[in-house]
Amino acid sequence: MQTVIFKNPPVITFSSSVAGPKESEGELSHFFDYKLKDDMYGEKTFEKAEAKIMYSAIDILLSKSKIKEDKIGLILAGDLLNQIISSTFAVRNFNCPYLGIYNACSTFTEALLVGSLFIDRRYKDNIICATSSHFSSAERQYRYPLELGSVRPPLSQWTVTGAGACMLNVKGEGPKITMSTVGKIVDFGVKDANNMGGAMAPACADTLLTFFKETKLEVDDFDLIITGDLGVFGTRVFKDLMWEKGYDVSGNHVDCGELVFNINEKEYQGGSGAGCSSLVFCSFFMELFKKKKLNRVILIATGALLSSLSALQGESIPSIAHLVCIENMEGKK
Amino acid sequence: MQTVIFKNPPVITFSSSVAGPKESEGELSHFFDYKLKDDMYGEKTFEKAEAKIMYSAIDILLSKSKIKEDKIGLILAGDLLNQIISSTFAVRNFNCPYLGIYNACSTFTEALLVGSLFIDRRYKDNIICATSSHFSSAERQYRYPLELGSVRPPLSQWTVTGAGACMLNVKGEGPKITMSTVGKIVDFGVKDANNMGGAMAPACADTLLTFFKETKLEVDDFDLIITGDLGVFGTRVFKDLMWEKGYDVSGNHVDCGELVFNINEKEYQGGSGAGCSSLVFCSFFMELFKKKKLNRVILIATGALLSSLSALQGESIPSIAHLVCIENMEGKK
Repeated sequence: MQTVIFKNPPVITFSSSVAGPKESEGELSHFFDYKLKDDMYGEKTFEKAEAKIMYSAIDILLSKSKIKEDKIGLILAGDLLNQIISSTFAVRNFNCPYLGIYNACSTFTEALLVGSLFIDRRYKDNIICATSSHFSSAERQYRYPLELGSVRPPLSQWTVTGAGACMLNVKGEGPKITMSTVGKIVDFGVKDANNMGGAMAPACADTLLTFFKETKLEVDDFDLIITGDLGVFGTRVFKDLMWEKGYDVSGNHVDCGELVFNINEKEYQGGSGAGCSSLVFCSFFMELFKKKKLNRVILIATGALLSSLSALQGESIPSIAHLVCIENMEGKK
Repeated sequence: MQTVIFKNPPVITFSSSVAGPKESEGELSHFFDYKLKDDMYGEKTFEKAEAKIMYSAIDILLSKSKIKEDKIGLILAGDLLNQIISSTFAVRNFNCPYLGIYNACSTFTEALLVGSLFIDRRYKDNIICATSSHFSSAERQYRYPLELGSVRPPLSQWTVTGAGACMLNVKGEGPKITMSTVGKIVDFGVKDANNMGGAMAPACADTLLTFFKETKLEVDDFDLIITGDLGVFGTRVFKDLMWEKGYDVSGNHVDCGELVFNINEKEYQGGSGAGCSSLVFCSFFMELFKKKKLNRVILIATGALLSSLSALQGESIPSIAHLVCIENMEGKK
């Protein structure tokens, strides 16, 4: 069984979001807690700005939840930078136990899974899960210096500048994380580092198919199937792969990467990055849960596990997707 | 409480180790399962060699344990390379659920902790924890190209080439992981990327002091207090810091970094790297446990959470240390 069914499902009691300037011009703008006017955020480098973005997300979460720093049981965080330094330098400011995790853009659901284990067993309470990304720090690390002005190929996605954080609790008001499926690495041999969506789609389908098989649940049992950052092309591949296996997800699928920017944007493929699913989930979807417009969703964040070096050494892009099922449990026992 | 006391402590049933040529000439040589004659290991790059080293460690573990790949509940792995690609490309060869984690050289104890949570709750069985490092891939990523022939400063440690892996089970023969303390980030402002031991020692002391305080246990309750890779200087700082707080650990402390190479080596400070504690623990210490020469130890792997970029941007080195308590439980209920 790749799927874990939590005996004591944790509650997502609070969430927070910090968005970059471009993200703040998108359709979801009014759901964000804090909107940056400048993606440098008063810092000297993009990397320091990213760390500050994650710091702010955690800081806002502490304010919203009114939980003091010394009551935080654990911070689980990760990001795309080498040695996940955004997380390190963000968390350094808090005197809290910390575990760093990394599965590229699927880090957010990995955090929710690991955090849920601690809560489920009552070993810890007040667990913060946070992930971030930054267009400019990612671009110069993974691709080219921005100053080069490279033309972006048609399949490329735009790394989201932003962070999302949420608080997991033993008790409280909010949707619960009831199940989680740990993904396997899937590699269909895609070598184009600009086509992350295509590389990640098979991993996404693999995890979702496993979840359906193991839980005997169906597409229609969920209000929404939310993917992390497949983008437009990746979403299409994902739907096709599901269709081939007899599942039609076209009716209730949305992709955070497709939602985060404006529909008339120039980034035709949509957003990506470890901050993409966390930013969108911790703002828009948490709001829908609060308003009872959502009752049960699947969230699958997908990760492309490449590095710029592995790409240069001719390797393909191994991908992974971790799934969590999130539900409003009112009326249920 | 930073410390978790497991209700159903997992058993470390099997372990495996793969060591580089230099490590294989050290005092622990005959404890290693596989010894490399050439640190390229038949690959074209150091990074591919490191991935193969971790792959081999996992492969040997599967052979030793006679557990088939499809019965593996989870692989938890991490390493020092950007985007932990050694782990990704090692684990890609196995059709198993995977979670990537990263806390630099404290990744091994982080893996043991997270793996223990799954076992403790009986959500999964047959969990593999693996970490690796490689002198040559680390050197060129974190410091200088080897071809430059840079003189190594006196406080520098030698990154261990090797990997260790172990199997966690619900039942079986072997020592158990009974407790674990999640570390906090500690940063004393050390900026010298060649003095990792000095940077990590305060984090190590912080976690151990927290463990003693929370569990009411004492230094003498343990056969050994094993640190990951403080090296000679870091060990000295660590002992001093403990002494200041009223704990004399000098009688039963050992450091994996000090053990892994020969005493007459030129690397005066000893070894380091995410593979250091896993290689030494999964060979030498597991053997001592099997022979009942050890009954109860503390293992604290320490991590320096820098990247080459954070160092270049003038940041200090935030550090962290995660602790696990490992005991032979025979005779106890």
